[in-house]
Amino acid sequence: MYLEKIRQENPLIHSMTNVVVTNFTANGLLALGASPVMAYAKEEVADMAKVAGALLLNIGTLSHEQVEAMIIAGKSANEVGVPVVLDPVGAGATALRTESAKRILEEVNVTVLRGNAGEISSLVGIEVQVKGVDGAVEGEYTEIASEAARLFKCLTVVTGEVDIVSDGHENYAVANGHPWLTKVVGTGCLLGGILASFLAVAKGEEVNALQAGLAYYGIAAEKAFERTKEQGIASFQIEFLNQLQSLTDQDVDQLKK
Amino acid sequence: MYLEKIRQENPLIHSMTNVVVTNFTANGLLALGASPVMAYAKEEVADMAKVAGALLLNIGTLSHEQVEAMIIAGKSANEVGVPVVLDPVGAGATALRTESAKRILEEVNVTVLRGNAGEISSLVGIEVQVKGVDGAVEGEYTEIASEAARLFKCLTVVTGEVDIVSDGHENYAVANGHPWLTKVVGTGCLLGGILASFLAVAKGEEVNALQAGLAYYGIAAEKAFERTKEQGIASFQIEFLNQLQSLTDQDVDQLKK
Amino acid sequence: MYLEKIRQENPLIHSMTNVVVTNFTANGLLALGASPVMAYAKEEVADMAKVAGALLLNIGTLSHEQVEAMIIAGKSANEVGVPVVLDPVGAGATALRTESAKRILEEVNVTVLRGNAGEISSLVGIEVQVKGVDGAVEGEYTEIASEAARLFKCLTVVTGEVDIVSDGHENYAVANGHPWLTKVVGTGCLLGGILASFLAVAKGEEVNALQAGLAYYGIAAEKAFERTKEQGIASFQIEFLNQLQSLTDQDVDQLKK
Repeated sequence: MYLEKIRQENPLIHSMTNVVVTNFTANGLLALGASPVMAYAKEEVADMAKVAGALLLNIGTLSHEQVEAMIIAGKSANEVGVPVVLDPVGAGATALRTESAKRILEEVNVTVLRGNAGEISSLVGIEVQVKGVDGAVEGEYTEIASEAARLFKCLTVVTGEVDIVSDGHENYAVANGHPWLTKVVGTGCLLGGILASFLAVAKGEEVNALQAGLAYYGIAAEKAFERTKEQGIASFQIEFLNQLQSLTDQDVDQLKK
Repeated sequence: MYLEKIRQENPLIHSMTNVVVTNFTANGLLALGASPVMAYAKEEVADMAKVAGALLLNIGTLSHEQVEAMIIAGKSANEVGVPVVLDPVGAGATALRTESAKRILEEVNVTVLRGNAGEISSLVGIEVQVKGVDGAVEGEYTEIASEAARLFKCLTVVTGEVDIVSDGHENYAVANGHPWLTKVVGTGCLLGGILASFLAVAKGEEVNALQAGLAYYGIAAEKAFERTKEQGIASFQIEFLNQLQSLTDQDVDQLKK
Repeated sequence: MYLEKIRQENPLIHSMTNVVVTNFTANGLLALGASPVMAYAKEEVADMAKVAGALLLNIGTLSHEQVEAMIIAGKSANEVGVPVVLDPVGAGATALRTESAKRILEEVNVTVLRGNAGEISSLVGIEVQVKGVDGAVEGEYTEIASEAARLFKCLTVVTGEVDIVSDGHENYAVANGHPWLTKVVGTGCLLGGILASFLAVAKGEEVNALQAGLAYYGIAAEKAFERTKEQGIASFQIEFLNQLQSLTDQDVDQLKK
């Protein structure tokens, strides 16, 4: 029912994301049925965020100026109740990233914080070793998600082999997905935009919507792998986007794990 | 005959475009047979524009600095008679975009202004409602195109279900295309580069060249849809680029609407 | 054996590259088995370069600020012995590019300089005519490579129909590849990242590793062309990435020219 709503309403997703994944993010959002718009200039982000269905902040290739613009956009979204998703790409890998993510979390009311276990654990101060921006860590994903949700007072999604949604008290697991997602750049970043789209049509039922969004995303990967495993990851990427377009709410209900 | 010329001469298209679509634009221009070059720094854009076959200015992810650089490049192109295409992405959606597009139109002799009806109407001051950057509006596309051509003293292309080319007096319609073009990010932006390439080899017959370019682009989409409709929009995007490579002038003559 | 090592060690490749090719570069590196990370801000590039397996500097869409950041990253890499690949995209096409490339070569100990004949010849001061950023020139590729290697005291790779690796004294030719590589944007830029990945696992045998990397890349193109020649260059691009994923050291040994 969320997919149907997104495809009817085509929510505008104001995406302030990194230069590596802008194109893939926009095409993924179009495949889903949302309307991506990228706007980065300080002079316009407040205007754009205000008319959006949701705002995505992703610090993958950040600069001080972009972080400033993200905070302006985030505050503007907060004023009118537009949900905000923060993806703290590479938090823990450099001081600039960790500090920038924390600063955004302090100044903006973030609706959902989404990252891998390495990123989220570095924000809550649990020590783990991170390798690059996609670095996974061993350990208690659920504890990390739950701790972050309490500390930053926002819903938290920690993605990995099993994805965890936490509101700080209850935790929910979604087990769909496929390892080839980690072989295509930007699949984590696009997921932030996908979750933003689900939030845009699901006021008041955010936790449900996040679980549906994660299942939808993982199922698309499972189906894409089935069809392209003989070919390779570039074919997988194309088929993954095709699946994002064609999957229905019924598919998600039937195949979610 | 324009396609043949482009493939013989490989005109250099200096593309100052937005970060979302740079890769797709470059690959689309290569598929056509043109030579894309991206250069953005104030210190070099005048040099690059001067040796180009055409200059593309696209404000999709603009900043003040980039607009300055676009004006430097545009003036340099004007000095040596290099045609300039302006794509005012998102004009009407934020004040920054509307004002930046108008400023470029004032300071640079733009050869062709290309946008959707929402963008162009916001520049000529006709009130319509725009949704996002791809927002279409109901209404008189032809009037909007014609008014813009007279007001800004340049050829104007308004794209939509039917594309309109106007010189302010005569208007020409091209009806090729497919709705899936709106499901792939950057198809409007790439079209600006494609039209720039046609202009680069068609001095003195710009209106004809624009019609041929629009028909070529729309036919590629029609053929791509026929081959990929069972698969989805990501497969469509790939096949669309394949078609841009393989279509000939004869195909365009035969299939244009 | 280099491919096997890369796929076991997944070296982190800190890629400071141009906005046109970031996504393609990252996906190509993932296909190979390396771990791409893009970081551009002055405040973090020294940290990132230090923990990387190799650093890629590509001036394709440069600004003064980015060149500064590249020099900071390069010096940091030098301090800890991380290999540095410089791709002087468009050197010779504008003064800014030629000067920026030379400045990096002066201030950073570059391990490998990689470019086409036009770019490298402009850096060594041999006069040739360059068209755009992909401009090939007639002439003595081997002489250009050898001269650059001596002048800049680094290994030099000049790519073209036949690729040349030179240490300034000995020159080695690799003849794999396919002309369709020139019809996909960023294949030269991605090659810089691929060679950086080979260097990351081949301390002390750089010249061998570069030849293996060039052969691997060219063979992937040959195989991709065989499978997609009836379809077109966009299908070729997808299959090329698939091949980068599936080729083995044995394939390279068997098919290298």
